[in-house]
Amino acid sequence: MAKPDPALLDPARYPFAHEVTTRFADLDPNDHINNVAMAAVLEDGRVRFNMALGLRRAENFRPMVASVSIDYLAQAHFPQPMTCHVAACDIGRSSWQMQQVLVQEGRAVATCRTVVVCTDGQKAIPLPEDFRDRLGPWLLK
Amino acid sequence: MAKPDPALLDPARYPFAHEVTTRFADLDPNDHINNVAMAAVLEDGRVRFNMALGLRRAENFRPMVASVSIDYLAQAHFPQPMTCHVAACDIGRSSWQMQQVLVQEGRAVATCRTVVVCTDGQKAIPLPEDFRDRLGPWLLK
Amino acid sequence: MAKPDPALLDPARYPFAHEVTTRFADLDPNDHINNVAMAAVLEDGRVRFNMALGLRRAENFRPMVASVSIDYLAQAHFPQPMTCHVAACDIGRSSWQMQQVLVQEGRAVATCRTVVVCTDGQKAIPLPEDFRDRLGPWLLK
Amino acid sequence: MAKPDPALLDPARYPFAHEVTTRFADLDPNDHINNVAMAAVLEDGRVRFNMALGLRRAENFRPMVASVSIDYLAQAHFPQPMTCHVAACDIGRSSWQMQQVLVQEGRAVATCRTVVVCTDGQKAIPLPEDFRDRLGPWLLK
Repeated sequence: MAKPDPALLDPARYPFAHEVTTRFADLDPNDHINNVAMAAVLEDGRVRFNMALGLRRAENFRPMVASVSIDYLAQAHFPQPMTCHVAACDIGRSSWQMQQVLVQEGRAVATCRTVVVCTDGQKAIPLPEDFRDRLGPWLLK
Repeated sequence: MAKPDPALLDPARYPFAHEVTTRFADLDPNDHINNVAMAAVLEDGRVRFNMALGLRRAENFRPMVASVSIDYLAQAHFPQPMTCHVAACDIGRSSWQMQQVLVQEGRAVATCRTVVVCTDGQKAIPLPEDFRDRLGPWLLK
Repeated sequence: MAKPDPALLDPARYPFAHEVTTRFADLDPNDHINNVAMAAVLEDGRVRFNMALGLRRAENFRPMVASVSIDYLAQAHFPQPMTCHVAACDIGRSSWQMQQVLVQEGRAVATCRTVVVCTDGQKAIPLPEDFRDRLGPWLLK
Repeated sequence: MAKPDPALLDPARYPFAHEVTTRFADLDPNDHINNVAMAAVLEDGRVRFNMALGLRRAENFRPMVASVSIDYLAQAHFPQPMTCHVAACDIGRSSWQMQQVLVQEGRAVATCRTVVVCTDGQKAIPLPEDFRDRLGPWLLK
């Protein structure tokens, strides 16, 4: 199991949270929630975060996920729900990042860092100023 | 879309219900919840129903799913949750059935009928009397 | 396990076949290919069948899956591949059906019957004559 | 899209390869293979790599995936197959890593780095010498 930065495990730092029901189909032969099923729950958390901050398909730029890095901290179980906490961070010239922590029964089971690049559909372009402003309230505290 | 028996669409007839969060990964290129994702949600509802009625891995028989028939009634959407209603029905000598209706925003989006066979791990055996009794409170009303 | 019509288990009757690699994520806590993963493989087989017969998104009608019925005949395993055999059958006035058998290591593990309704996007409409002709070579033998 | 180390994109450096069929269920509303579906294909590649090098459930240690980092390089499509190339690398005292590149139609669509920790089921333990030897032929060239 990974040893993450303890500061990233505190749900209070994340401005967005979504509770997810686990599914029997998430289980694997080890009888715990499969690592890829956790990746699906984290993806779902990012999409809902983007909806909350008003990111739409019709922006004047196209966001592309460049990388996803997941640290697996503890086994997650069925049928308990999980809560997915999400924050924006590291806003750069043409990219921003999302930090997540996935919690089950009060215990962090995974953290995730995602790099999103702002593109014109082909190549990276500068992040529009208004979008940069919209990210403001959703930053990691 | 299928035309189901209207009597099967009434949630009040089902003794068990579970609310499921939809996930972005459930969507397909038609931008609705994929038919197979609905099958996963229905499977999850059956597993939770079995847990509620006390069906354990250590029964003196082994249940095997013989068939699953899903009628797709309407498109289901993300990110709204769905509620999965489940009931037992048609208890036979060595099998029983499960009836389900999947509801989103007050609208039935799918029904499902599952045949479960009681086996010794290899071949069908008679349903134990005590399990037959345990199914009693969970029948379709 | 279900007892299917033996005549439906003969791959030679099906004009279309596609070999699928199984994935670790298809396994469930029973250490066999999960029933819903089999549903995903069967769906994939139908989509590839539709591509082979030239069904496109831009037809003058919109096909909708009304129902999917799967009989589970035997356990399927990882990491062996499976072969999905597909045929059209029961062509009606405004619907047609698809019959499938899923085979692993020479053994039928599931059969599937799917009802597809021809619609204008809302309600059932008669199957266009030219599409009826195109289905001809793809019928169950 | 991420800009990966070009040296990691050369399939010839990887001692193991597995061709995977894509599935309709892998597609998302953007009509390309979903990022999480790619994670499932990469996981499948690691499991098959472990089978090839003889890693069994009954080792005298228990491997645990500590982290998975995926760089998404290009869109992947259905129905074309993908090839998953896998190698071991960075063998440490109590952990080792796996490097992967996922290729579709001659183009790298993703790379992945996975850290696996050698444990006694609870905490990290030194990698057994014989397992270290077994990894030898499977290193990134």
